[in-house]
Amino acid sequence: MNQLELMQELSIQNDSKIVLLVLDGVGGVPQEPGGQTELEAAHTPNLDALASRSACGMSIPVSPGITPGSGPAHLSLFGYDPLEYEIGRGVLEALGIGFDLQPNDVAARGNFCTVDDQGLITDRRAGRISTEEGARRVDLLRDIQLPGVETFVEPVKEYRFALILRGQGLAGEIDDTDPQKTGVAPLLAVAGDEASQPTAKLVNGWIEQAARILAAHPPANMLTLRGLAVDPNLPKFSQIYGLRAAAVAVYPMYKGVARLVGMDVLSVDGDTPADEFETVRHHWEEYDFFFVHIKKTDSYGEDGNFEAKKHVIEVLDEALPQLLDLNPDVLVVTGDHSTPCLLKSHSWHPLPILLSANAARGNPVTRFGETACLGGSLGRIRHVDIMPLAMAHALRLAKFGA
Amino acid sequence: MNQLELMQELSIQNDSKIVLLVLDGVGGVPQEPGGQTELEAAHTPNLDALASRSACGMSIPVSPGITPGSGPAHLSLFGYDPLEYEIGRGVLEALGIGFDLQPNDVAARGNFCTVDDQGLITDRRAGRISTEEGARRVDLLRDIQLPGVETFVEPVKEYRFALILRGQGLAGEIDDTDPQKTGVAPLLAVAGDEASQPTAKLVNGWIEQAARILAAHPPANMLTLRGLAVDPNLPKFSQIYGLRAAAVAVYPMYKGVARLVGMDVLSVDGDTPADEFETVRHHWEEYDFFFVHIKKTDSYGEDGNFEAKKHVIEVLDEALPQLLDLNPDVLVVTGDHSTPCLLKSHSWHPLPILLSANAARGNPVTRFGETACLGGSLGRIRHVDIMPLAMAHALRLAKFGA
Repeated sequence: MNQLELMQELSIQNDSKIVLLVLDGVGGVPQEPGGQTELEAAHTPNLDALASRSACGMSIPVSPGITPGSGPAHLSLFGYDPLEYEIGRGVLEALGIGFDLQPNDVAARGNFCTVDDQGLITDRRAGRISTEEGARRVDLLRDIQLPGVETFVEPVKEYRFALILRGQGLAGEIDDTDPQKTGVAPLLAVAGDEASQPTAKLVNGWIEQAARILAAHPPANMLTLRGLAVDPNLPKFSQIYGLRAAAVAVYPMYKGVARLVGMDVLSVDGDTPADEFETVRHHWEEYDFFFVHIKKTDSYGEDGNFEAKKHVIEVLDEALPQLLDLNPDVLVVTGDHSTPCLLKSHSWHPLPILLSANAARGNPVTRFGETACLGGSLGRIRHVDIMPLAMAHALRLAKFGA
Repeated sequence: MNQLELMQELSIQNDSKIVLLVLDGVGGVPQEPGGQTELEAAHTPNLDALASRSACGMSIPVSPGITPGSGPAHLSLFGYDPLEYEIGRGVLEALGIGFDLQPNDVAARGNFCTVDDQGLITDRRAGRISTEEGARRVDLLRDIQLPGVETFVEPVKEYRFALILRGQGLAGEIDDTDPQKTGVAPLLAVAGDEASQPTAKLVNGWIEQAARILAAHPPANMLTLRGLAVDPNLPKFSQIYGLRAAAVAVYPMYKGVARLVGMDVLSVDGDTPADEFETVRHHWEEYDFFFVHIKKTDSYGEDGNFEAKKHVIEVLDEALPQLLDLNPDVLVVTGDHSTPCLLKSHSWHPLPILLSANAARGNPVTRFGETACLGGSLGRIRHVDIMPLAMAHALRLAKFGA
């Protein structure tokens, strides 16, 4: 029995409210040995007071040393082992650029490439054309029509784009058309199962039209598709945990991941933490579980802007009492992954986590930070442990065995 | 996807250098409650200073309570779960006595036994003859010739020895000849697959000749063979991690394990830590990864000689600046397993570990020792986590998912 099956078997109903507050990329490392992280440097009286009356610890997003993308990191937070529940690259690419992916959409990652006059690939990345050049070609491809399905083409970066098909009866078991080498022609889209054959035919029709359009636009005069995939049809969060669950997020990627597991996505009026907490308040009675996502901590980490990251943590801290006033039975605060300004990218470093609940075991922690939480009573956990712990502290899990 | 597959998928190239410094058996326990371990009692200013600017923690060799032999302990250090990647006992026995095992050698563990005049076993351990008696019989067996293959017979201890066959076309899927009971004759060597049949025939030929020689030397007048095995053909370290890897070790067992995973084994002029570090320096530009093995910490642990073990740790510490001067991007210092003088043997106790790297998250640790490292930012990990962490800190792992 895997963990989700265990949760589904043990989960019981009560009136408790659980809030999972995710500060994207909040974890950091000191800029120099012996220094403080962004979170440690920030003035966070509300988080610190909360940590003092919570169970604290450190949480590893996937496994030691593994830097997760936002998709796998959030799946982990929701209790889905991302090594077990893989999301196709096309779906991730679409989520990653903020595309509002719907169930049953088929998404693919596309690469512009260069072919010679025999149609053989000479450059798999079309000379790494600029993002602007890529976007211009994407615009041309938007005019392609397919019978009975809607198509969306979205630029990603340089020679990369995303293709999404939307309609009835689509399926995503389709091989890559990228032959992964030069000197040969792009492959046809081949269905890996019966159900995907109509979709493969549509994809090939789309490619044919695209090829005609691109022929006049070297060096990106052809394309390949990879990672064709449909919504992985994950077991639904509400069924696993017996929770009416809502997502409060400003950025599309996180709405997309929440929608993948079947959460309702609430619309937020504004984009500050205060606006997001107001949304939670507004819907407080309708749901048992709120996933609240704060984006900007990550963005400034990616920029390497220590002061700005510190500042948005302080802004969040200031707004926190709005959330605390709702008096959730269980409040978990952590991040999806670290984004140290030092690295200007996601990283593998564990995240501080606090869990506030009536039955939380206390600890000597008095600050919410990477070093302070090392000594917390939760110890070192993994993100996939968070939901079982939240459920337990909400007294929503029955005893296992007699 | 198992961890090695994940590593292979995510590993990327850069110019970083990683050093894994293994102090064999360095972990200890206090001689009396409240006392210090060998490592804690040693004066180690260089290790302590390094720990102060590193991420520290404790590492469990295999799993809680499991005392590993050197083979499994080192496989773990290299990222291979030793419960998944088992090495045949014959191979371990050969490595364990320092035999220079080559790929495709078939190795077996041998036991001298006593048979009666019907050839039935009366004592499976030949009255536990002395090591000298065993070695004398091994000498006699060295004269046995087999067509087309070289044979090596090596004493192990008392009634135990190792047999190694070397040649073309050998295979190791061969059942034990030890019937595991008395009153019956030793079994014939039976091949478990087609490819092993010629080898089984050779083994039976060798046993036949050995039986004739031993007949005149009761009580060890016969033998049985167990754990026949060939190099397990492990996935290669260099392919998994994309690292040009070298081993610097003085003792044959550790060279053997490194060779099993495909590392280059460098020859060391001398046998001190300083000599080993000099070897690293000499080959610095040729490799991305150095496994450096220091043996003597273990040997004195096995002797129960607290002062001597403490002293060799101090000798290592004194030589350490030689290694630090090379300025590796990632330096990990730990042990393969503990060897407490109190127990005079390997043990299951977790090892202190430090990881020094630019992106290592700091911690309040100021000493390299079993108690000090408990509060470190790496927390409690397992040996198999070390390579992913080293790779991550060397920025040699791509993001998992988008």
